[in-house]
Amino acid sequence: MSLIVKKFGGSSVADAPGILRVAGIIADDYSEGHELVVVLSAQGDTTDDLTAKAAEINQSPSRREMDMLLATGELASAALMAMALEKLGLPVISLSGQQAGIRTSSDHGSARIEKIDCERIRGELDKRRIVIVAGFQGVCRNGDVTTLGRGGSDTTAVALAAALRADRCQKYTDEDGVYTADPRKVPGALRLSEITYDEMMELASLGAQVLNNRSVQMAKRYGVELEVLTSFERKPGTIVKEVTNMEKIKISGVAKDTNAARIAVMGLRDEPGIAFRVFRVLSNAKIVVDIILQSIGREGTKDISFTVARSDLDSAVSALDAQREALGFSELDVSDSVAKVSIVGAGMMSASGVATMMFEALYDAKVNISMISTSEIKISVLVDEADADRAVAAIHRRFFED
Amino acid sequence: MSLIVKKFGGSSVADAPGILRVAGIIADDYSEGHELVVVLSAQGDTTDDLTAKAAEINQSPSRREMDMLLATGELASAALMAMALEKLGLPVISLSGQQAGIRTSSDHGSARIEKIDCERIRGELDKRRIVIVAGFQGVCRNGDVTTLGRGGSDTTAVALAAALRADRCQKYTDEDGVYTADPRKVPGALRLSEITYDEMMELASLGAQVLNNRSVQMAKRYGVELEVLTSFERKPGTIVKEVTNMEKIKISGVAKDTNAARIAVMGLRDEPGIAFRVFRVLSNAKIVVDIILQSIGREGTKDISFTVARSDLDSAVSALDAQREALGFSELDVSDSVAKVSIVGAGMMSASGVATMMFEALYDAKVNISMISTSEIKISVLVDEADADRAVAAIHRRFFED
Repeated sequence: MSLIVKKFGGSSVADAPGILRVAGIIADDYSEGHELVVVLSAQGDTTDDLTAKAAEINQSPSRREMDMLLATGELASAALMAMALEKLGLPVISLSGQQAGIRTSSDHGSARIEKIDCERIRGELDKRRIVIVAGFQGVCRNGDVTTLGRGGSDTTAVALAAALRADRCQKYTDEDGVYTADPRKVPGALRLSEITYDEMMELASLGAQVLNNRSVQMAKRYGVELEVLTSFERKPGTIVKEVTNMEKIKISGVAKDTNAARIAVMGLRDEPGIAFRVFRVLSNAKIVVDIILQSIGREGTKDISFTVARSDLDSAVSALDAQREALGFSELDVSDSVAKVSIVGAGMMSASGVATMMFEALYDAKVNISMISTSEIKISVLVDEADADRAVAAIHRRFFED
Repeated sequence: MSLIVKKFGGSSVADAPGILRVAGIIADDYSEGHELVVVLSAQGDTTDDLTAKAAEINQSPSRREMDMLLATGELASAALMAMALEKLGLPVISLSGQQAGIRTSSDHGSARIEKIDCERIRGELDKRRIVIVAGFQGVCRNGDVTTLGRGGSDTTAVALAAALRADRCQKYTDEDGVYTADPRKVPGALRLSEITYDEMMELASLGAQVLNNRSVQMAKRYGVELEVLTSFERKPGTIVKEVTNMEKIKISGVAKDTNAARIAVMGLRDEPGIAFRVFRVLSNAKIVVDIILQSIGREGTKDISFTVARSDLDSAVSALDAQREALGFSELDVSDSVAKVSIVGAGMMSASGVATMMFEALYDAKVNISMISTSEIKISVLVDEADADRAVAAIHRRFFED
């Protein structure tokens, strides 16, 4: 008998047939004797609908009241799922975040889980009940409802798995696991049976949307074994855990991130501390910088290039422009038609020739590289957005298909 | 400065314009310096929609899960109203039943309020905040959400007014007060400026749907002054309180109840205890009996006639039929095309001639009376449903228009 935490997203429980289908999966696992805690998101477009309803009344409501409003979506899907399982004759109870003991900070809209009091859930499991928990929400010290922000239900699931010392945390998605590249774009993409937390985080940050980084990070910290699997077929998915069979595959995937923009700060004085001063301006503006490249410019000046999220592009440019005098640069060169293409794999750096193979694949495909960044488990290149899909395909072919 | 509890129903807050309109009323009262606690129902058809959603999944879900589901409706309208008041720049907070300290029994679907911990509400009022409370709901001992059943939001409002020792509890409706008859049916109907709790209860039980009896009963017990008023105009409504000016008007209203059915149990043996045995059968079947008439039947037998709610007619007949042998009656005569017409007024019995005037009015209108029932503050007659409106008009004319 295992204790399993399962998480289903909003599209899986969007309507009555979806809820009944998911109830069937839960019932099967229960009949195998497992203890089950199930975390649910709000149904389909509920969260968007509630947000629109609020906007009709107030364009900028307080986050406290938004949390009160939005949390109702997950409460409703939890109750409806409990009814579906009751219909199947199974013992079940739905719990709000508060009832599930999820204590959070009071940062409404992006609260952090501080502690989970598992007493109630444990008691219900001891009664052999399936426990349905409304995802995305908790309660802060003064008894107010909070929400956990983006990917909040994933966070709920992993945090519950950690607090309950669950044997596994299963995240159901539309995909049947994690792939070496986007299977809709790269026909030869392979499904991974295992991947490490770090690799998963790199892939997630690169746009493979199956698991958000916050939940993977938490899973890593507490050693929660994750599984990404589909709710449309009964078959194993991809396991995310600390150590996987590293001999078998060096590269776990190729990913593309088109949410990137490049800024080049040109003609900076070549003096100590200049890079520090540029990036202090950006961090004061709360802008996260990704790949950084520093090069010699003309006539003894320096150019510093870096990438930011596209949504931060305008504020990055304004922040730098406002300090043009102080920083002493000649011009800003900006492009938002770039994409970041990366290969991810644990132990990549210890294997010689990975970078070479990647660059060769891009050269053969005639893709121009404008920036390069490397980490322990990742090599990223910045390319023209128009070249990105071709770059992914070329790299994937070289590493997985040849 | 007064402490006022206001209650708005689902139709008042059905959409964004409705919410903003109600917010305007609240803002006006706040600007006059009052402390305000506002109880809201779920928006428009929300409760019906949620019930239909549940029925798609499970025709007979547990009451515990229904409560979890239904309570979200009031939470959402409370949060939306808070946003509307924020938009007007007013300090406000929305609270769930639980946060408002409403502790109930664990009878899901029809929980009774056991206690209200006013600490949180008091604290928010002390901060000069308007407090919006989700109606219809509370929390039971084990932390589960409960709902209060029909008219639950009215009950919430009155209970809060009692617990907070509010100066007044205002219930906003589509009507601008309580009338001597249904103003849509009787053009000459008069609006009452005051009415007693008992009169209000009699009128409510007779189909004047402005206030449900449970809340009036509670208001009477705790001496909460109620006001029934409209949200469409800014003008005083009808005050419901213990003692009103009884000299001024003896009859406070004429009402019609078409939710009545008549059963005659014919040919009972004329022996002691026979009435007791008939009504024990009905009370065992949890059927509430209203007007009762006992008369001599043919050949030394007895007939007992009574009225029940139409929804109880079938089960009353089955219960009696099952005991036909034991009770020893010859036949059941049943009619569901009857209506109860009543006049209500405190001190009516001490005023001579009221019954006579009523019967005379009915006689002049050629309305046949099949049963009569009287109480301290009410005289009811059972008539053919087809005659009911004519009966109401005739009585109203005699008492209020002549």
